[in-house]
Amino acid sequence: MILIDGTATAATIKEEIAQRVRQILADGGRRPHLAAILVGHDGGSETYVANKVKACEVCGFQSTLIRYEADVTEQELIDKVIELNNDDSIDGFIVQLPLPRHIDEQKIIEAIDYRKDVDGFTPVNVGRMAIGLPCFISATPKGIMELLKRYHIQTSGKHCVIIGRSNIVGKPMAQLMLQKIYGDSTVTICHSHTENLKEICRTADILIAAIGRPAFVTADMVKPGATVIDVGTTRVPDATRKSGFRLQGDVDFEHVAPLCSHITPVPGGVGPMTISMLMQNTLLAVEKNW
Amino acid sequence: MILIDGTATAATIKEEIAQRVRQILADGGRRPHLAAILVGHDGGSETYVANKVKACEVCGFQSTLIRYEADVTEQELIDKVIELNNDDSIDGFIVQLPLPRHIDEQKIIEAIDYRKDVDGFTPVNVGRMAIGLPCFISATPKGIMELLKRYHIQTSGKHCVIIGRSNIVGKPMAQLMLQKIYGDSTVTICHSHTENLKEICRTADILIAAIGRPAFVTADMVKPGATVIDVGTTRVPDATRKSGFRLQGDVDFEHVAPLCSHITPVPGGVGPMTISMLMQNTLLAVEKNW
Repeated sequence: MILIDGTATAATIKEEIAQRVRQILADGGRRPHLAAILVGHDGGSETYVANKVKACEVCGFQSTLIRYEADVTEQELIDKVIELNNDDSIDGFIVQLPLPRHIDEQKIIEAIDYRKDVDGFTPVNVGRMAIGLPCFISATPKGIMELLKRYHIQTSGKHCVIIGRSNIVGKPMAQLMLQKIYGDSTVTICHSHTENLKEICRTADILIAAIGRPAFVTADMVKPGATVIDVGTTRVPDATRKSGFRLQGDVDFEHVAPLCSHITPVPGGVGPMTISMLMQNTLLAVEKNW
Repeated sequence: MILIDGTATAATIKEEIAQRVRQILADGGRRPHLAAILVGHDGGSETYVANKVKACEVCGFQSTLIRYEADVTEQELIDKVIELNNDDSIDGFIVQLPLPRHIDEQKIIEAIDYRKDVDGFTPVNVGRMAIGLPCFISATPKGIMELLKRYHIQTSGKHCVIIGRSNIVGKPMAQLMLQKIYGDSTVTICHSHTENLKEICRTADILIAAIGRPAFVTADMVKPGATVIDVGTTRVPDATRKSGFRLQGDVDFEHVAPLCSHITPVPGGVGPMTISMLMQNTLLAVEKNW
């Protein structure tokens, strides 16, 4: 069984990006520039954005953090998005989610010019990915594709079973694994209403769990020799930890891991990849031509 | 075995639309107005567009046909698309494909305002459908969903296997069958690189064939009691016909039909539904609110 090390892979990718940036600067180019809009003071969002800013430093990017209090109006945010769309000094930007309830998230996302939408959340980018056009792919599915590639896991013609049909993971994952230019797999998407779930999972060469139900995937759902990708990260109470909780994936790692050819741990698997994929998208925003 | 009658269903739908239009007019509203751009004199395209114009008459729509010779420039077409985008008297419009080789089809499609894109081909509409937002769904997948609904075929929790991953049928079909607000099925997408294709097809409660390979789906690929939807329409030589050919679906109808609970014939199944779905989209363009 090979443990897929997302932390090490993400570090490698950031170093590759930093190297590319040094090359761009040596060639007389400008530093890639990522902006982030952060609304309010949600603890999780603060941490995520701080980590993104830090990753920008590691990669040699310029970063700009734009803060608003939680009482910002929808129109103020839209105006800022339009300003960033038109600001040639900024290559890409994100709006950190979730937003306060009085703001229509979808409306904000749709205001972003898809050519700067490095989160890949706008309908245009989602559609372009589905059609197979150049696009920004959102961080989690992109990170999983990168792990499969870097660990030389064969996907073409293989059966990939995805549990979960979210807009953030399950659906784009299916699109990527399906297409000839990406995974070229046979793809099955399962969800809460699926009949014979265990039976279907057992046919998977690659099993991707993204439902947010701790230890949902048990050993009897996994074919020996399968690759298992665990996207779940649920906080479960753990009295032995100082924090009082630990992160638990969707996979019963202890019993599933011995069966697998490859498996991602939680934490340290898919999670660490996401920010490096945002950095890769920002670099793509600089180098793209569409 | 129940034969799914697309011709009759399409006629019913057009009559329902005509009724709705009479109501709109009685309420002092304006006739829905569909425009079509036709480039060159391709025989197939001429027929399709003529049938669309005829369907507009049946539904009580106004229609406008805009013709260009095959030597029209890309810029002329884009300018016309932008004009139609901004013309408040037109609710929706289509650009009949294929276009001559010197024109970038994707560029023309992307110029269409998604709110008038009644073919549902723009990346914005494809993305909006994937995300589950209000959108125009392209005619063939929309027609199949309508047939499943009108024949009361249970889809929720059922296993739907789709053969083919085209942008026009396979991929959007998968999106629709998957989502809770549409099919709510477990979905598997197979294609030319799929291993164990027969075995996977045999697990399908609903089997949708969209590969354009005549009589590809044989009886040993179908589970008894399954619903089979045949999207293929290939012209095969037939000396007994005056035309010298007949339309052959992707399914070996003669041997598969006796096994099925429901099956669509070719011709007279999915095919006749598409134009009525274009009419439904045009009505939606009038009544929508996005």
